[in-house]
Amino acid sequence: MPDKHEISEWFMHLQDKICIALTAADENKDLDFSKFQEDNWKREQGGGGRTRTLQNGNIIEKGGVNFSAVHGKLPEKIVSEFKLNSENSGFFATGVSIVIHPKHPFVPIIHMNVRYFEMENGVKWFGGGIDLTPHYVNTDDAGFFHRSLKDCCDNFDPGYYPEFKKWADDYFFIKHRNETRGVGGIFFDRLSADETHTLSDRFEFVKSIGELFAPLYTGLMKKHCTSLYNEQHKNWQLLRRGRYVEFNLVYDRGTKFGLETNGRTESILMSLPPMAAWPYDFLPSVGSEEEKTTAYLKKNIDWID
Amino acid sequence: MPDKHEISEWFMHLQDKICIALTAADENKDLDFSKFQEDNWKREQGGGGRTRTLQNGNIIEKGGVNFSAVHGKLPEKIVSEFKLNSENSGFFATGVSIVIHPKHPFVPIIHMNVRYFEMENGVKWFGGGIDLTPHYVNTDDAGFFHRSLKDCCDNFDPGYYPEFKKWADDYFFIKHRNETRGVGGIFFDRLSADETHTLSDRFEFVKSIGELFAPLYTGLMKKHCTSLYNEQHKNWQLLRRGRYVEFNLVYDRGTKFGLETNGRTESILMSLPPMAAWPYDFLPSVGSEEEKTTAYLKKNIDWID
Repeated sequence: MPDKHEISEWFMHLQDKICIALTAADENKDLDFSKFQEDNWKREQGGGGRTRTLQNGNIIEKGGVNFSAVHGKLPEKIVSEFKLNSENSGFFATGVSIVIHPKHPFVPIIHMNVRYFEMENGVKWFGGGIDLTPHYVNTDDAGFFHRSLKDCCDNFDPGYYPEFKKWADDYFFIKHRNETRGVGGIFFDRLSADETHTLSDRFEFVKSIGELFAPLYTGLMKKHCTSLYNEQHKNWQLLRRGRYVEFNLVYDRGTKFGLETNGRTESILMSLPPMAAWPYDFLPSVGSEEEKTTAYLKKNIDWID
Repeated sequence: MPDKHEISEWFMHLQDKICIALTAADENKDLDFSKFQEDNWKREQGGGGRTRTLQNGNIIEKGGVNFSAVHGKLPEKIVSEFKLNSENSGFFATGVSIVIHPKHPFVPIIHMNVRYFEMENGVKWFGGGIDLTPHYVNTDDAGFFHRSLKDCCDNFDPGYYPEFKKWADDYFFIKHRNETRGVGGIFFDRLSADETHTLSDRFEFVKSIGELFAPLYTGLMKKHCTSLYNEQHKNWQLLRRGRYVEFNLVYDRGTKFGLETNGRTESILMSLPPMAAWPYDFLPSVGSEEEKTTAYLKKNIDWID
């Protein structure tokens, strides 16, 4: 059975591997841009993290690959939200969180999070998710992305993909816009040991998702980074990034949890885009690529079909 | 005693007057930009509004001057938050909301809201506020702004300004950044009739604040719109606008109330800037104007002194 130190260490190595892969994919030998800046931080109430960010790369305009391992007592607000017992509110949480905002409008935004949480009272669970937010929906990419996730899930449990895909559709939803954040992916939480899975099984699954990130995303970076784009595409990218901001600040539970537990603000908000726009009441013209994308921002689309 | 129709009508006229004043201050005879676009909308559950927005003006990059008058039953969530009785949850709410994002970094962002709320159970109150968010804090402007608000308040009650100024400091505060949104102003809520004020007295005060908006802000527009600025100033403006987005989406009660009661999203989010930026962990250089501004983003500064 994996213990928290082993899990935390594995996450730290995952951060390393992903940073190396992203650096290589973003690299331009002539420029010295594609480098991650590292900030190590400590949390007053226990633990800390290693934030790595890359800005103004060749393809990556702003990206964060964050590792953290924090511990302490859960704040009262969270204890009651989680319906926990405040006498045993000691917790340990570790994970890797990634958001990449590419410069190119045809390269999608991506997010991944893999995490482990345990409590003094014996609760132990894994959670995470990976979802894709194209500025312009490309159904081939979406199909490839979902197929890769499904294959990975199916290696562990045939029930995972359908359940976690629906979970992502419901989670990554911007209610006040009545649209999904992007083409979804998978989302899962509170995966503890049960009759059919040991905690080690859960860990192996989370590892497998973590390992999938780099080949999946660097493939999409390379595929689209040479596509030509114009000002209209950039403006649409800025608008879609605005929706990303709306989701993260209004709905995202990780962001809320971080801000409420006095996390390091700049590490939590590394998920926000380098630049975003809110033109008033913009409506894409009929038949445009922008309108087609909007039509795909719905729940329950079977991308693999 | 003013009734809801009279109050609502007055707010509608205020919207007209403010739009005329802002149009005149933004005007460029050679260009046809400085025009408000009007969108009338109806709310399914009762009432509606008149949204007026101006984009890409000469000084105003994006501004909204919104009137609304809505009625119906309060949602259960709000009823319990307000600690009300759900049997009498019929309500009527009317008001004017304004946010102006100027193109020029030396012209401040401004916000004003004046509103009236009544319930079936007999509750009647006024609320509102006006606050200034300079990209670069100018202590003369802040002093002039607060002096004008104090003079206006003092005409009605010498206790208003100190109470409402403190309320604004506490309300317009970005907890996760440990900084105020700007230089504050006044904020007040639930002003009902009491031993020393009739509801008419409260209405006269709110009218007076509403009337103050146009001369106050057009003065600041004219004062600073000819100042030269460079790319560094624009970048800082984009960062400060990012903070504005964080406040509005994470903390602002009006925004939350609107999004939760199925308000018109584009009217609620007209408060978001045309463009904003989140550079990772930007630190102003020592002694810079940007650093000076950051040092002023604190509560309890006496700007008039």
